[in-house]
Amino acid sequence: MLLACLDLEGVLVPEIWIAVAERTGIDQLRLTTRDVPDYDELMQHRLAVLDQHGVKLSEIQAVIAELGPMPGALEMLAWLRDRFQVVILSDTFYEFGMPLMKQLGFPTLFCHNLEVADDRVVGYRLRLPDQKRASIQSFRALNFRTIAAGDSYNDTAMLAEADAGILFRPPAKVIEEFPQFPVVLDYDQLRVAFASAAATLSLDA
Amino acid sequence: MLLACLDLEGVLVPEIWIAVAERTGIDQLRLTTRDVPDYDELMQHRLAVLDQHGVKLSEIQAVIAELGPMPGALEMLAWLRDRFQVVILSDTFYEFGMPLMKQLGFPTLFCHNLEVADDRVVGYRLRLPDQKRASIQSFRALNFRTIAAGDSYNDTAMLAEADAGILFRPPAKVIEEFPQFPVVLDYDQLRVAFASAAATLSLDA
Repeated sequence: MLLACLDLEGVLVPEIWIAVAERTGIDQLRLTTRDVPDYDELMQHRLAVLDQHGVKLSEIQAVIAELGPMPGALEMLAWLRDRFQVVILSDTFYEFGMPLMKQLGFPTLFCHNLEVADDRVVGYRLRLPDQKRASIQSFRALNFRTIAAGDSYNDTAMLAEADAGILFRPPAKVIEEFPQFPVVLDYDQLRVAFASAAATLSLDA
Repeated sequence: MLLACLDLEGVLVPEIWIAVAERTGIDQLRLTTRDVPDYDELMQHRLAVLDQHGVKLSEIQAVIAELGPMPGALEMLAWLRDRFQVVILSDTFYEFGMPLMKQLGFPTLFCHNLEVADDRVVGYRLRLPDQKRASIQSFRALNFRTIAAGDSYNDTAMLAEADAGILFRPPAKVIEEFPQFPVVLDYDQLRVAFASAAATLSLDA
């Protein structure tokens, strides 16, 4: 059986931090893993900016509650779940992700936790470093064939570890640095890429 | 974050093989893992009986299509998915399980595959021996705390491997042999047992 692993932000829902930057007017929050490959460096930057501007967790959660899935994401996910077992592998936090999971019909989400004190985000706890790749390794050790799709730097290790990897609307520099992965630009193309990878893996089996 | 792992048959949906036995009138198909702890012994018996009576896969699938979730199962699963990441760990087969997953809102299912030729079930391929326990081990290695619930012999290794294990409506001899696991008899009790285990594990963290 085939397992489909999807990144969350940029693939099914908008980038959470960019939405927060837009709603709060704090441009320093616009950076994402697309811009800063080192995740801890990016998160320390975000925490410092939140602290500096006194942004509360509940304010961030209010922004997230208004973010819906991207147009067509629900249909794409329904298509996938009908054909594959699906696990969302994301470097977001459950405190941010769960309202989005509700809107997506509660697919299984593997991500991290925030450290919160008095409605302020004071830190974060990675459940596991490099969890996207480690999760794929675990699924393969459980004898699943895996197909992974993501859009940015922090997905490339997952894509490389999977039996098949797909880049969904990646920035130009990710395309340049990782020419080995097929690039798709919309959900129709993503469906075709999943079906094609599945057919190839089934022939190999 | 806490991961909830659930057995499928006897916990969320009726026992598939018992339903097939009832609809086909073949009493030899009534045996389950509750009766025969050795899974391969049980499956070889089932395959031989199917062959002997000429039962086709499509006939079995027609029976399964009419099985719905047990009363209250959808609500219980919705409650769980709102609070935990959920993975169904079952020793059934995707050929049987997927119509049931559709009725349950496509939770992630880890199970096995049948070997099918000309609409006849000619064999089965375990994705992995002892996959319920191996899956829990993988989730724990990925730094999840795990709570597992199941009803029969083939769940006890999963329950023992998890951070907390719960028996749901088990037969008397499973209760006798595995007195270390709390026993619940309905979904309300199951919710309480999950909440209680989660609270204990959070205190330990």
